[in-house]
Amino acid sequence: MSSGIKSRRPAAPSPFDLNAYVHRCCKEVDRALGRFLPSASTKPATIHQAMRYSLFAGGKRMRPALVMAAAEACGGSWQEAMPLACAVECIHTYSLIHDDLPAMDNDDFRRGKPTNHKVYGEGVAVLAGDALLTQAFEIVAQARGWGRYSHQDLVLELARASGSLQLIAGQVADLEGEGKRLPLSELRYIHERKTSALLCCSVRFGGMSANCTPAQLRGLTEFGYNVGLAFQIIDDILDVTQSSETLGKTAGKDTAAQKATYPSLLGLDASKLEAARLTDRAFKALKVFRGRATALEALARYLLQRDR
Amino acid sequence: MSSGIKSRRPAAPSPFDLNAYVHRCCKEVDRALGRFLPSASTKPATIHQAMRYSLFAGGKRMRPALVMAAAEACGGSWQEAMPLACAVECIHTYSLIHDDLPAMDNDDFRRGKPTNHKVYGEGVAVLAGDALLTQAFEIVAQARGWGRYSHQDLVLELARASGSLQLIAGQVADLEGEGKRLPLSELRYIHERKTSALLCCSVRFGGMSANCTPAQLRGLTEFGYNVGLAFQIIDDILDVTQSSETLGKTAGKDTAAQKATYPSLLGLDASKLEAARLTDRAFKALKVFRGRATALEALARYLLQRDR
Repeated sequence: MSSGIKSRRPAAPSPFDLNAYVHRCCKEVDRALGRFLPSASTKPATIHQAMRYSLFAGGKRMRPALVMAAAEACGGSWQEAMPLACAVECIHTYSLIHDDLPAMDNDDFRRGKPTNHKVYGEGVAVLAGDALLTQAFEIVAQARGWGRYSHQDLVLELARASGSLQLIAGQVADLEGEGKRLPLSELRYIHERKTSALLCCSVRFGGMSANCTPAQLRGLTEFGYNVGLAFQIIDDILDVTQSSETLGKTAGKDTAAQKATYPSLLGLDASKLEAARLTDRAFKALKVFRGRATALEALARYLLQRDR
Repeated sequence: MSSGIKSRRPAAPSPFDLNAYVHRCCKEVDRALGRFLPSASTKPATIHQAMRYSLFAGGKRMRPALVMAAAEACGGSWQEAMPLACAVECIHTYSLIHDDLPAMDNDDFRRGKPTNHKVYGEGVAVLAGDALLTQAFEIVAQARGWGRYSHQDLVLELARASGSLQLIAGQVADLEGEGKRLPLSELRYIHERKTSALLCCSVRFGGMSANCTPAQLRGLTEFGYNVGLAFQIIDDILDVTQSSETLGKTAGKDTAAQKATYPSLLGLDASKLEAARLTDRAFKALKVFRGRATALEALARYLLQRDR
């Protein structure tokens, strides 16, 4: 270390490098997922290859990054949070595989690659989704419990966020809403469940892994809910404004499927304002962390400003 | 109570009434499942109706009965074992819904009623299966832990038995084996995973709910494995020998799908002998319970002697 007058002057705070953060998170989460899952050659190889195909198909690992950032905001570590981050990503990936099936959204491409059932067939795709869903709970059970939060709490948290009253409820309502002119309240119901539920669970998981206080957990819940809803509104907006090439998936699908979206009900500008308003509420929810939620703030800003 | 000489003479041991046992078990499990699951009118009603349709479609509740009987053998109670019995039944039902899908076994009838996707459509059937799988873990998390066995143990047990190395592995191998002449070792691999894995988990769950000793748990594991394999061989035999009407599902499906079965590889008589041999091993595994496993023995006898 150098000494003298210069070193006494506090360094200007370096701007938070979100790209580096997310990149490092992706790398570490990928490595951990690779260890948690049976290898691609484990019998029956087909199912493990199919699970890994979608799990390592270039997802942005936004949910794991939220888990990590929330853990940090509560004074925790990536290492402690890692199993929970991996579990959430398994749930997210399973839901994408099943959503893409012909009987649901019937998508041929996801992140610029053929969807699971296009590569492995529908039967194996259903089972790969089932296996990732089951794997998520196996991973949570392998995590260690943290003071206030037992395995019971963790399993309940994940099961409720991804169950028939939340994640699956959103998908069912979405499926049933196709071709109908839904009111905004119903569209909000869908978005809350399809997206907010698991984002909420992600940040709460991060907090739990850091043995957070009840006040911190409330802050994270409010943050997750609002970012999740904003995220989904942005998704609706991008479906209207961007090309398939930019998105890496079929654009204009919502319009083609006559799905109600925020832009179709509120218009584009009002939708953007609503997303901004929700993000503002999300930022306010971070006050409880008194400046220690840098990564969470940066992630929220990124989720609102992304163009793909 | 009457008194006198007559009452001092011990009553002749009344023969175990398996029908009454299973009937009472069905009733109590149905009631508990009804409480664990969201009501049929809970939004989104479609998914909860679809979940309940298959869960209450007249299943024999063999797995819950095994949970209860194993709990009793270890000195436990039905009440303590109930959440675990319900969780196992949710897993079993989800696996049937997904197995029946057109992309898998393509079955139109199950237990004499149209399969889930015939009533609710494929999309909802996939999601109803997902929801029951998720519900199983929510129910396990709601159970209380028992001395030697924590929630971590219980969740790991269920996740492994139903994951990509066991239950799902069996289904994948089954799917891939269609139209191929599989060797007996591969057919055994499939049966062990499609059936033994969850039966093993059922009796182990029963033992765990009674805070069983490690020796008792080993006995239950050996019992569950052998009964499970015998059960599946009987299923193969019935598919050949019984009518659709008797079975309540399409008979001769295995032959039609050119699936390898024990009868097709070993012949009918040798298959029956093999099932009997496995049941014998199962009975031997119950010695550790010193006569307190009456219900487990009766269930094993029923599973071998059933004609539907």
